[in-house]
Amino acid sequence: MAEGRRGCLIIIGGHEDRDPGGERKILREVARHVRGGKLVLATVASHKPEGYFDEYERAFEDLGIGDLVELYVEDRNEAGDREKLQVLDDAAGIFFSGGDQLRITSQIGDTGIEAKVRALYERGGVVAGTSAGASVMSDTMLVKGTSKETHRIGDLHMSPGLGLIRDVIIDQHFAERGRFGRLLGAVAHNPRVLGIGIDENTAAMVEGDRLKVIGEGAVYVVDGTGVSYSNVAEAKSDITLSMHDVTVHILAEGDSFDLKDRRPIPGSG
Amino acid sequence: MAEGRRGCLIIIGGHEDRDPGGERKILREVARHVRGGKLVLATVASHKPEGYFDEYERAFEDLGIGDLVELYVEDRNEAGDREKLQVLDDAAGIFFSGGDQLRITSQIGDTGIEAKVRALYERGGVVAGTSAGASVMSDTMLVKGTSKETHRIGDLHMSPGLGLIRDVIIDQHFAERGRFGRLLGAVAHNPRVLGIGIDENTAAMVEGDRLKVIGEGAVYVVDGTGVSYSNVAEAKSDITLSMHDVTVHILAEGDSFDLKDRRPIPGSG
Repeated sequence: MAEGRRGCLIIIGGHEDRDPGGERKILREVARHVRGGKLVLATVASHKPEGYFDEYERAFEDLGIGDLVELYVEDRNEAGDREKLQVLDDAAGIFFSGGDQLRITSQIGDTGIEAKVRALYERGGVVAGTSAGASVMSDTMLVKGTSKETHRIGDLHMSPGLGLIRDVIIDQHFAERGRFGRLLGAVAHNPRVLGIGIDENTAAMVEGDRLKVIGEGAVYVVDGTGVSYSNVAEAKSDITLSMHDVTVHILAEGDSFDLKDRRPIPGSG
Repeated sequence: MAEGRRGCLIIIGGHEDRDPGGERKILREVARHVRGGKLVLATVASHKPEGYFDEYERAFEDLGIGDLVELYVEDRNEAGDREKLQVLDDAAGIFFSGGDQLRITSQIGDTGIEAKVRALYERGGVVAGTSAGASVMSDTMLVKGTSKETHRIGDLHMSPGLGLIRDVIIDQHFAERGRFGRLLGAVAHNPRVLGIGIDENTAAMVEGDRLKVIGEGAVYVVDGTGVSYSNVAEAKSDITLSMHDVTVHILAEGDSFDLKDRRPIPGSG
């Protein structure tokens, strides 16, 4: 699971505190990992990126980032532009803001930018993302699926993500949007995949095989290893999911999780 | 767990199909258990019971109920009235409609009516309830707790219920209102208690130690037996719940659950 994983992923469940007068615990952690270097703010998930950069610029202003630079790709054919690519060469980190995860992968997937992001990560850089920017980190990502109801087989759209972390599937705005049902549905499809549901203003920080929680809410880990029965392979697409013996961990700030052994580690409290 | 449990409980997650032209699967099941006898519709959970009876009368009209009679208690001192009590003497079942679960327990708890409901159940009758009427069935019931967020320690109000089923805690409108967090919170308080979350238009039917699912959504069973760590006893009341190694079963129509052995039994599919 760990191969090629060198830097740090900061996977944020959306609505992280960005108030210049606030604690900004998660952005502070991003800045700490950037260590005074250059952070690229990738607003590519948004159709209308105006305002995002200004907001993050204010939020990061006194957190010790050396340089904050926007990267936006209007069309896929811009994703090979030399100047866009050069932005990433000396970056210490990249931060994917929210929007539509399919815009990220469809615009930069299999382009020079994606390769540069991977290179940044492999040389020890930080890749952070919030909301849509969180979802794209895994090899398979959740694109669409009804919130606030129990999963119906067939009502879930998954798609290839950036693949910076393997064998997990990430959902965000988790408790706030009642997404437990759809994450269970995703895990039912293939219990090899660990479900990671992240609440708002909460982040899962991944370094090596260790995931650590910071922020206000919780990170839910859904482990299907022990599942004794599931009806996910049944023919009808509108039947209700049935899945027995799922293991769930609710992790709060300070708690960790060993992704290799699939074991939670209590925080100091 | 089974002592004194003689009849059938039909515990409904709210918004069951009541359309006279619809399938009315759950009400049909209630009627089947009443076997042409008398069903008492207890609207006591509501501050304004007007209209409930008419709606259920239309819904049950062609389902083979012998007699449908309303029972309403405006004030607690009415709960000893001879005529109110007599209504239950020859009833084959009682159905608690929705509203406020505290109204049910505060108006009829420890009164002649409560004793008659218990007697009805113990002589083999059916006790059905939807929404608030579902919550009151357990010995400890959920009264209040924030939906759509991860449980904060201290943000949960529980209260003594009617105690027709022991060692469980019931939540309703489950996936629809994003209540996974609060049910996990309730189970964290004492893992002896099994959490049962019921979706709308879905019912858990309990006979003896066997729970069976009917309806459109799912019944979630949250089993804290294997919990390896929880921070629920920590001092601060606003910290986020952390709980490791919870077992969850998502049960769809046809699935059963053995309440004594705490084991799910797959349906025929």
